[in-house]
Amino acid sequence: MTVVGKASRSASIGPASLQDMRRQNLAVVLGAVAAHSPLSRADVSGRVGLTRAAVSSLVDELIGRGAVTEAAAAASGRPGRPGRALAVNGEGPAGLGLEIGVGHLGACVVDLRGEPRVWRREERANAGRPAREVLAEAAALAAAAQAEAAALGLRVEGRILAVPGVVPNEPGGLVEGAPNLGWHGVRLSDHWPDADTVPEPENEANLGALAEYWNVGKPAETFVHVSAGGGIGAALVIGGRLFRGARGFAGELGHLPVQPDGPECACGARGCLEQYAGEAAVLREAALAQHGPGEAVALLAERAGAGHAPTLAALDRAGRALGLALTSAVDLIDPDALVLGGAYAELADWLLPSVRAELAARVTVRPWAPEALRTSALGRRGPLLGAALTTVRRIMADPTLLPVV
Amino acid sequence: MTVVGKASRSASIGPASLQDMRRQNLAVVLGAVAAHSPLSRADVSGRVGLTRAAVSSLVDELIGRGAVTEAAAAASGRPGRPGRALAVNGEGPAGLGLEIGVGHLGACVVDLRGEPRVWRREERANAGRPAREVLAEAAALAAAAQAEAAALGLRVEGRILAVPGVVPNEPGGLVEGAPNLGWHGVRLSDHWPDADTVPEPENEANLGALAEYWNVGKPAETFVHVSAGGGIGAALVIGGRLFRGARGFAGELGHLPVQPDGPECACGARGCLEQYAGEAAVLREAALAQHGPGEAVALLAERAGAGHAPTLAALDRAGRALGLALTSAVDLIDPDALVLGGAYAELADWLLPSVRAELAARVTVRPWAPEALRTSALGRRGPLLGAALTTVRRIMADPTLLPVV
Repeated sequence: MTVVGKASRSASIGPASLQDMRRQNLAVVLGAVAAHSPLSRADVSGRVGLTRAAVSSLVDELIGRGAVTEAAAAASGRPGRPGRALAVNGEGPAGLGLEIGVGHLGACVVDLRGEPRVWRREERANAGRPAREVLAEAAALAAAAQAEAAALGLRVEGRILAVPGVVPNEPGGLVEGAPNLGWHGVRLSDHWPDADTVPEPENEANLGALAEYWNVGKPAETFVHVSAGGGIGAALVIGGRLFRGARGFAGELGHLPVQPDGPECACGARGCLEQYAGEAAVLREAALAQHGPGEAVALLAERAGAGHAPTLAALDRAGRALGLALTSAVDLIDPDALVLGGAYAELADWLLPSVRAELAARVTVRPWAPEALRTSALGRRGPLLGAALTTVRRIMADPTLLPVV
Repeated sequence: MTVVGKASRSASIGPASLQDMRRQNLAVVLGAVAAHSPLSRADVSGRVGLTRAAVSSLVDELIGRGAVTEAAAAASGRPGRPGRALAVNGEGPAGLGLEIGVGHLGACVVDLRGEPRVWRREERANAGRPAREVLAEAAALAAAAQAEAAALGLRVEGRILAVPGVVPNEPGGLVEGAPNLGWHGVRLSDHWPDADTVPEPENEANLGALAEYWNVGKPAETFVHVSAGGGIGAALVIGGRLFRGARGFAGELGHLPVQPDGPECACGARGCLEQYAGEAAVLREAALAQHGPGEAVALLAERAGAGHAPTLAALDRAGRALGLALTSAVDLIDPDALVLGGAYAELADWLLPSVRAELAARVTVRPWAPEALRTSALGRRGPLLGAALTTVRRIMADPTLLPVV
């Protein structure tokens, strides 16, 4: 089964049918169990304000769908029939997250409690290779992760693939363009080896932002989350929800022009942020161009930590360009916070001072607090975690997405 | 009476009380009358699906509040009691819009049908003068407009002041900063001569965008509306609603850095869009710096139309800078449309080619259609009209804001 629909799509407004009501009540009960378990059925009834009979029927359905477990009766010391402890099932439905980066493949399975249970990452040079080849390797990694999850009792109920590219709003599994991979108009179902396991693509910066919002404690209700890996993306969370733009292309921070006459970019434009703050540009500027796939960030952090002057200069230059681009984001969107995620999180010590200096010098018309620029705690794990958590969040919002097993 | 609350504030979610239900039904009936008048009470009942008795009670209340008029009985040729024609009252509640620009003051009164009935505009050099002085003149103009409206039978029910500056989300009538006026932290109630008529400030670019959305036929559901007067502002309409940002400062397009090392701006930063595409910059570049207040746009259009080379070069330069800034807006927000409003609308013939060329060269990762860049039909009238219409829209959404007269 694939849990369909975009995370950002809102419920339709109108009179709730009985079916809608039941769906909503299932979500309320599951949410109460997730937030406060162990709870007995009576505890749930007290918390959510539904009758014991209604709660029991809902709990039975949640157990039937594998979302909730109920422990054997345990003496509570209190009079009456002992309550049995309900908990979210950690050995049942699960979300599979996949990631294709410029320099790696990733797979992650989270259980319904949101815990990562399987985590795989393989260094691969994916840029410029045929999409079919890369997707076949991603599918093999997905199958291995799913098998590992199955051995833990986990059943994958949805598959989301994080890609460093633009994904339109309309369904259909299309990656419109991923310049750092060299992809243009790649429809996943055309290349994925197994029709039953085709994942739904989503922009990796969007998933990183959602992971930050869901998993770490909300950084803010309206924030811009910057991700850097091979490329640079950003995602806008507005009022607690991902804003994907009219067509799904919002947050394309990496191609903001920071120097109108700057060097040509892979995208065809000039002076894009990626030409100053992208991984390849920073390595080149730091005279560290010779490196294997995947080591770039660690290498930069190590050299910067050791005081290597060209690396420090390259990171300062990257931070200034990033500060310029973020000035535009702050001016246009007025977020509560800016969050540096992805590889930037690991280089924050060297980037933050120049980003902050640019913001201070350029965001002048309205107040802007330096502490509103923060570092993600998830860093490079964000997009993959967000991909896996998307399925869990959808199930938590609508447990009827789960089959009755 | 002042109609309180921000236009962008959403209704609270929860079980509707009987009072909420009635308020909502009043709005539904008023909306039906506005869209389809003349209608009889029976027609309204047929259209909105409420009983005749309920509609009659609602219509009576709308008449009592002055929102609706009912014409004397007219023979319809049909059997039964002849229906009397309901219409939105064009001689009752009204919205007063005010505007303080760098080079002018404006006042406008619209009736509940949305028709402008009073329109005043006075050229004034407002930049750098004490806020108290400018606000006193605005108050005098407001009083004159209100008197003119009263002679037409109109009763001002709300006052909104369009300012070329940032207005925080929280209520309190504060203009945080308006660099082109030289205002910093101006609270209107501290300076307005009459405590009963203090207007609510709103950013002029926001009001221009709303006027475009309400009055002209929706240009799109998600669009960026650019306004230029003395300064340059933009407003974001997202999903049909104004997005004001976390604190109310979204859309500060004029201070996007388009040349990191460009000339210093009044805001304190360098290379802001206003230094290339603002009125003063274009006049200077066109060697037309000597001009009286308010004539600037007409003068530029006249010289450009006559083929004056420095003017054409200045407008081309402005268009390129604007295209650069809009590239950032498109990359970050992914709107359905960009709308050029304010003074830009009157200079569109000379600006659009270079704006389009920059967008075509720089928005490369995702598709962007040149026709998604459009010109506002309202032009410089937008902010003032939007200010006046805001009150009308609030009343249409909640007719109980009107007193029973």
